[in-house]
Amino acid sequence: MVGCGSIGQGVLPLILRHIGMEPSQITIVNSDERGSRVAAEMGVTYIVQPLTRENFRDVLSPMLGQGDFLLNLSVDVSSVALIAFCRDVGALYLDTCVEPWLGGYTDTSLSASQRSNYGLRESALALREGGNSGPTALITHGANPGLVSHFVKQALLNLANDTGVVTTVPTTRAEWGALAQTLSVKVIHIAERDTQVANIPKERDEFVNTWSVDGFVGEGCQPAELGWGTHETVWPADARRHDFGSGAAIYLERPGASTRVRTWTPLEGPFHGFLITHNESISIADYYTVKNGDEVAYRPTVHYAYHPADDAVLSVHELAGKNWNMQSRTRLMMDEIISGTDELGVLLMGHANGAYWYGSRLTIEEARSLAPYNNATSLQVTAAVLAGVIWAMENPDRGVIEPDAIDHDRILEITKPYLGEVVGVYSDWTPLLDRGVLFPEAVDTSEPWLFGNFRVV
Amino acid sequence: MVGCGSIGQGVLPLILRHIGMEPSQITIVNSDERGSRVAAEMGVTYIVQPLTRENFRDVLSPMLGQGDFLLNLSVDVSSVALIAFCRDVGALYLDTCVEPWLGGYTDTSLSASQRSNYGLRESALALREGGNSGPTALITHGANPGLVSHFVKQALLNLANDTGVVTTVPTTRAEWGALAQTLSVKVIHIAERDTQVANIPKERDEFVNTWSVDGFVGEGCQPAELGWGTHETVWPADARRHDFGSGAAIYLERPGASTRVRTWTPLEGPFHGFLITHNESISIADYYTVKNGDEVAYRPTVHYAYHPADDAVLSVHELAGKNWNMQSRTRLMMDEIISGTDELGVLLMGHANGAYWYGSRLTIEEARSLAPYNNATSLQVTAAVLAGVIWAMENPDRGVIEPDAIDHDRILEITKPYLGEVVGVYSDWTPLLDRGVLFPEAVDTSEPWLFGNFRVV
Ligand SMILES: NC(=O)c1ccc[n+]([C@@H]2O[C@H](COP(=O)([O-])OP(=O)(O)OC[C@H]3O[C@@H](n4cnc5c(N)ncnc54)[C@H](O)[C@@H]3O)[C@@H](O)[C@H]2O)c1
Ligand SMILES: NC(=O)c1ccc[n+]([C@@H]2O[C@H](COP(=O)([O-])OP(=O)(O)OC[C@H]3O[C@@H](n4cnc5c(N)ncnc54)[C@H](O)[C@@H]3O)[C@@H](O)[C@H]2O)c1
Repeated sequence: MVGCGSIGQGVLPLILRHIGMEPSQITIVNSDERGSRVAAEMGVTYIVQPLTRENFRDVLSPMLGQGDFLLNLSVDVSSVALIAFCRDVGALYLDTCVEPWLGGYTDTSLSASQRSNYGLRESALALREGGNSGPTALITHGANPGLVSHFVKQALLNLANDTGVVTTVPTTRAEWGALAQTLSVKVIHIAERDTQVANIPKERDEFVNTWSVDGFVGEGCQPAELGWGTHETVWPADARRHDFGSGAAIYLERPGASTRVRTWTPLEGPFHGFLITHNESISIADYYTVKNGDEVAYRPTVHYAYHPADDAVLSVHELAGKNWNMQSRTRLMMDEIISGTDELGVLLMGHANGAYWYGSRLTIEEARSLAPYNNATSLQVTAAVLAGVIWAMENPDRGVIEPDAIDHDRILEITKPYLGEVVGVYSDWTPLLDRGVLFPEAVDTSEPWLFGNFRVV
Repeated sequence: MVGCGSIGQGVLPLILRHIGMEPSQITIVNSDERGSRVAAEMGVTYIVQPLTRENFRDVLSPMLGQGDFLLNLSVDVSSVALIAFCRDVGALYLDTCVEPWLGGYTDTSLSASQRSNYGLRESALALREGGNSGPTALITHGANPGLVSHFVKQALLNLANDTGVVTTVPTTRAEWGALAQTLSVKVIHIAERDTQVANIPKERDEFVNTWSVDGFVGEGCQPAELGWGTHETVWPADARRHDFGSGAAIYLERPGASTRVRTWTPLEGPFHGFLITHNESISIADYYTVKNGDEVAYRPTVHYAYHPADDAVLSVHELAGKNWNMQSRTRLMMDEIISGTDELGVLLMGHANGAYWYGSRLTIEEARSLAPYNNATSLQVTAAVLAGVIWAMENPDRGVIEPDAIDHDRILEITKPYLGEVVGVYSDWTPLLDRGVLFPEAVDTSEPWLFGNFRVV
């Protein structure tokens, strides 16, 4: 295991609880002492050795061989480098984010397109060259990206059932795409509201979050990215296309952490979320693309709409005010959390029933009762990591593979005990609700589900 | 005294400490039980009787006559109505905001121009018709609006001194305008950072603030307004002019609570503040306008750039997410505050020394040691109210008058003991600092002090 932060620490007890292995079979390589106490409590070998472009093969070679598993839960270590290494030595692999080497998210010698998740994803998929085979490398399999791809499939099946569309459970990408198209799903938000709060206030010059601060700041400073649907008729002035790859997604020439969108969850109701780039925005849009020859006949618009914990909203506000010069202190909220829920799901919109949210709502109390070393946010991730590891062990030769392409039923079966309430809720919410009351607003009422109607300007 | 919220309660001990009067000489009229405990402790008569358009003359007539003082510290009661009444009966008057009757800020039967502070200010100034005389009615004399107008004068004098501009202390509006023009002050922000925090987190569906929630939400939902300077060359797409009045200010067709600007204070450094409309944005721009015949030869751009307490930032974010449908609960932060400072001053920019901030930084600890029933925010206001009352009693026949037109020395003399550190600090900050690093940004480098460079989009 590489990395032992909020996710690494949280997944250890789940792995030892559900996978028949001894603590002594696990070795953790981490860049600092973070998580060493948890590793010691769990009886797992723990090595402090920051991985770099130069040393990672030397460090990992003695530990990993044919049939072993590299679980990458680090930041600042290139996923592509680790996957290539695992393919060379025949080891299985899982990560929760396609990470670049340190500084890659904000390397201004790279173009915004190259710094995007679109670019990182293409670089991972390029490892498939010459046909996708070899040891399974399940990429981006946390909560989101990860679990939410399985929520989308379940939501589509529920929606078909509830709107009288007869279907068997699709078994291929083409069938899944056809189902989404038949249901006329125009937009999918990953709609998340994290209400966890602590009894110590955020300090000045401090970035506080319920999961990796480095991870969140990294992706928040990447360009805002979204899968670009076929129903969109208005091109955003700051939008750009990539000149390589699948073409499923576009990016905005601005950080996601300064880009707000209107969205909705059942417990919160309407709110403003951040359009933070995520792999699932691209992979889901790509997976559900229906083509007629070379022409794209159908694709949903897909993006993240994230309301992090309140203290993280304040942290982002402070960071933006300093023009993205990072705070000098960081804090991972864990024991100090006194209440709150992570409400994480997918919001499918534009179909016959309007809007349908399907996902998990997990309270901090329930998370604590289910597993040690977790909060509500991390447990949704670590349960998905556990499920991904099990699936990869059950399917060891699937090459480089994304969540959308694997068995959603199996993953939901493993994760559900850890997700609190898993619910589907319909709503008549649209981004046109209550608009233009105090002031005129540039909304397009002819099609509520246009991206321009969601965006906060 | 009408109203007994955060400001009314906080000013009572100051009035009884500094003005030679008995508690029995004071009567408070309030719409609910708020502040009744403090009134009882201070020995002041307290009546619960919401004032309305219909009843206010009947309620107030028995209490107010020639030479009495009406201190209006309420929300939702028309300032113009109360001033007219005071002028009829010969009573002195002071308020800290030109308030409309209940609902006036969000009455969509009114145009945005009519709902603006520009409109409210013009309606108050219209009481001067036929020449400005009669009992003194000092309007908008809190911290801001109020005190900050005196900070501007002191800052101009300091700046003249520090940049070798020889001047006597101006005694007329024309002389003050000429001084600002000579110094080439292009932009004035009321730059405020409130860092007060509590040890209980903001709840969902709750609006939390360090002063009136109703007051802040009211002004936050008004159009963003700013005095429009003569150095501005680019007209904002959403800006509108008023078709009546002084012409000193413009408004944006959007709520101030959704409009962010870059600004700077000495303790905080650069940050994003809200461009909330305030009377001083208009009155200062108007006061320092230099005309050549009918032509405006000089005017600074003036506006508020407000970073309220963190919990209020979250409250505004939540309110915006609900399309300005108000939270169901509110909380005034007072005893639960555990630390923080209100850093409130004026930031003069574009002159020979770049940027100069002059103002008060008052910690919660110092505020508590100086006066009961106050926090750092309210004490800056209540001290200014006290000073305004004293000034009005010393100058009882000045008609309807604004802070800019009164003796800044006298006000600073009275308020200073309550303002913590009062400091002037130079900075080389400009809104171009650190811009366009991660992404291209539309900045105009030919003139750093253009409004478009400050605005956050
Ligand atoms: N898909 C999801 O739902 C999801 C959710 C949360 C986090 N994540 C991702 O999971 C990863 C870990 O998240 P986290 O919250 O545990 O992060 P964290 O910041 O809490 O921990 C990161 C860990 O990486 C280690 N690390 C940093 N540089 C290293 C190096 N050079 N060599 C070895 N180790 C190094 C750190 O020591 C730390 O233990 C991140 O990529 C994050 O984006 C994904
Ligand atoms: N200039 C400044 O620096 C400054 C600073 C803070 C507040 N203010 C202004 O001062 C005023 C009071 O602020 P606050 O923080 O004390 O507000 P608050 O909300 O704490 O209290 C408002 C008071 O008005 C009373 N009220 C409401 N409707 C009334 C009615 N119809 N008749 C009689 N009383 C009524 C309420 O009962 C309450 O006591 C507001 O206008 C606010 O905008 C100005």
